[in-house]
Amino acid sequence: VTRRFEVVTIIGVGLLGGSLALALKARGLVGTVRGVGHRRSSLAVAESKGAIDESFLDVGEAVRGAELIVVCTPAGLVVDKLDEIRSSCPPEAVVTDVASTKAVICAHAEHTWPRPLRFVGSHPMAGSDKFGPEHADPDLYCGSVTVISVSNHAAPEALDIVRAFWTEVGARIVELDPILHDALVARTSHVPHIMAACLAELAARAGHVEPVVGQGFRDMTRVAASRPELWRDICLTNRDAILESLDALEELLDEVRSMVAEGAGPGLEEFFRCAGLARRKALGE
Amino acid sequence: VTRRFEVVTIIGVGLLGGSLALALKARGLVGTVRGVGHRRSSLAVAESKGAIDESFLDVGEAVRGAELIVVCTPAGLVVDKLDEIRSSCPPEAVVTDVASTKAVICAHAEHTWPRPLRFVGSHPMAGSDKFGPEHADPDLYCGSVTVISVSNHAAPEALDIVRAFWTEVGARIVELDPILHDALVARTSHVPHIMAACLAELAARAGHVEPVVGQGFRDMTRVAASRPELWRDICLTNRDAILESLDALEELLDEVRSMVAEGAGPGLEEFFRCAGLARRKALGE
Repeated sequence: VTRRFEVVTIIGVGLLGGSLALALKARGLVGTVRGVGHRRSSLAVAESKGAIDESFLDVGEAVRGAELIVVCTPAGLVVDKLDEIRSSCPPEAVVTDVASTKAVICAHAEHTWPRPLRFVGSHPMAGSDKFGPEHADPDLYCGSVTVISVSNHAAPEALDIVRAFWTEVGARIVELDPILHDALVARTSHVPHIMAACLAELAARAGHVEPVVGQGFRDMTRVAASRPELWRDICLTNRDAILESLDALEELLDEVRSMVAEGAGPGLEEFFRCAGLARRKALGE
Repeated sequence: VTRRFEVVTIIGVGLLGGSLALALKARGLVGTVRGVGHRRSSLAVAESKGAIDESFLDVGEAVRGAELIVVCTPAGLVVDKLDEIRSSCPPEAVVTDVASTKAVICAHAEHTWPRPLRFVGSHPMAGSDKFGPEHADPDLYCGSVTVISVSNHAAPEALDIVRAFWTEVGARIVELDPILHDALVARTSHVPHIMAACLAELAARAGHVEPVVGQGFRDMTRVAASRPELWRDICLTNRDAILESLDALEELLDEVRSMVAEGAGPGLEEFFRCAGLARRKALGE
């Protein structure tokens, strides 16, 4: 059910919001894009890139009459933005977001949003180490995966609309319960990110390591170069799943530590062999 | 002091040994390369690739009359190979190895090798996820770093010869005390590798994670696909430095865990910010 929207409101015109605006425009799926930001400068950049047609500092004003509203702020602000727009949002508007954590946001929407529920959480797994509207790219979502949060309460036509516009901008849709989504990404993304940060920190503390830094270290710590606020928000909004994964990780690390301490050759070989198989399983190979 | 060797013996003709043989030949630095293996099939592959001229199953026989002997077996076997060749090795032969851990091997050589000490440990930081003589490449070492273990006992001309041939095959030389080397690579390579293995294992245990696996996870776990025996040997031969690094890692993880549990936003943001800076410091940027 691809449809053309007269008015789309994008709250937060950074890389993800700006790219979505450009993508919808490039595919002729939207008349007017309204951008909401808290800094005139970002809005000006998004306007000059052609991502948005109108700039707003007041979110309530920006959502009036909109058919599709996409909250593209950092994860930690999504719940607040939903509260801010609830009273001025048209009842028929479809609302989604792009945050990397879904359980807290979806639960909040389910409890606060009018029925039939026209909020559907999204997690587009796209992005880069760049950020800001200056890097917005109409093809950012091409070939990526967008996870859509499935809820028993969501209005079917709202789900259809959210599925359709992500598909139109190039994403493959995966539907997941928000709690399961958060548990899985804790293991495939959030805890790996925390580990990358720890490994970078440990290496730097060892002193002058640069001569013995290889490609493996570079690859493993690359994500440590991303935005601190983004990862702070992820830790704050996916607390329980991250703690559960960290505990599982520490348990596994303790097992490996014992084998290293005891010089348990066969056990270590088996551990590394299983890890190679586990990676292939995780990648679906 | 680049010199041409009449006879070089390579013990272990896998990727590293085979590539070194090809590299020496391609640069006209050697007359005859003798290859030692415990399987006729690997030796046959190395011969057919043109890496070696003569094949030996008996290591004592292979080192007789050699001017340069390079032990290219897995790290766990280097000490045994040194013991095996000591009595048949010509007193003027220069001996080195290619293992990723240096303290145990260099200490053993210092204690057992005749004086003036003509054993000099090497750690060429080259390689790939491929292995075996069939992937041997004369340019494997081009642009890589080889760490040479500095010892007060090493004969200066032996050090010069080892420096010179690695430089000739394209490596940049870094000289490090073997204990310091092991402490640094524990943090930049060994513990990151153990972490990659743990992350792959944790993700696979979470069930069907493939839809939410992104490039970050792929990059962070790539090294988990390497050879289990290699990493078993590294854990066995760099035990103390790995344990020290694992302890430092667990301490740091505990700090992060507490911040996640407490929802300590500013602390988490600061942690991620410092990690980004730490990575740049570690990479020498």
